[in-house]
Amino acid sequence: MIKKVNIAQKMTLVEEYWSPKIVGELNDSHIKVAKFKGEFTWHHHENEDELFLVVKGTLLMKLRDQDIEVNEGEFVIVPKGVEHMPVASEEAHIILIEPKTTLNTGNVTEARTKRNLDSI
Amino acid sequence: MIKKVNIAQKMTLVEEYWSPKIVGELNDSHIKVAKFKGEFTWHHHENEDELFLVVKGTLLMKLRDQDIEVNEGEFVIVPKGVEHMPVASEEAHIILIEPKTTLNTGNVTEARTKRNLDSI
Repeated sequence: MIKKVNIAQKMTLVEEYWSPKIVGELNDSHIKVAKFKGEFTWHHHENEDELFLVVKGTLLMKLRDQDIEVNEGEFVIVPKGVEHMPVASEEAHIILIEPKTTLNTGNVTEARTKRNLDSI
Repeated sequence: MIKKVNIAQKMTLVEEYWSPKIVGELNDSHIKVAKFKGEFTWHHHENEDELFLVVKGTLLMKLRDQDIEVNEGEFVIVPKGVEHMPVASEEAHIILIEPKTTLNTGNVTEARTKRNLDSI
């Protein structure tokens, strides 16, 4: 049975920052929701482009050569291989779209690295 | 140079109903924006799952066994092979995420079939 997904409702189920949850599966990709607050970690993804769509708040996407402020209703695509660090000075609600193989911290392993994400 | 995309701004560039425009490229997929009004056509996609995210208005996704009302801030994923017909009684603004190979009318060719979509 196909069901629609309400993004705001799914966000209420996300308790931890920097811990994406799977809310949809589409071809080889996952649709995830996440809450960001503070600074993440500099990393890149060897083989995966990654989309960040802001549904609440503001995301500062730091790249090595520029910072991009992404506001509600805006998205940015970080191509594979490009080092980036997401930052949110206040809590931000984000939809992520990326291949199922994507690890949140990319080439880096640290305390917030998440494997085997939950579907909610 | 990586640039963010403002969805509402892109929507102002869409003049024709049922005519998706490409606003992003992500791995093997395109991110598209479209305006829907009225009834589309029953069709399916042989090999592609298709995501419809409503950013304005309401989308009625008709399937052969159910109708799903998708409101602002909600999405539905139609898996490959599943016959569907999008309907919007009032103008609705939609983000589509689907493989680059996806044709808007799937297995059907009709007046609104769009090939070689523009990027905006």
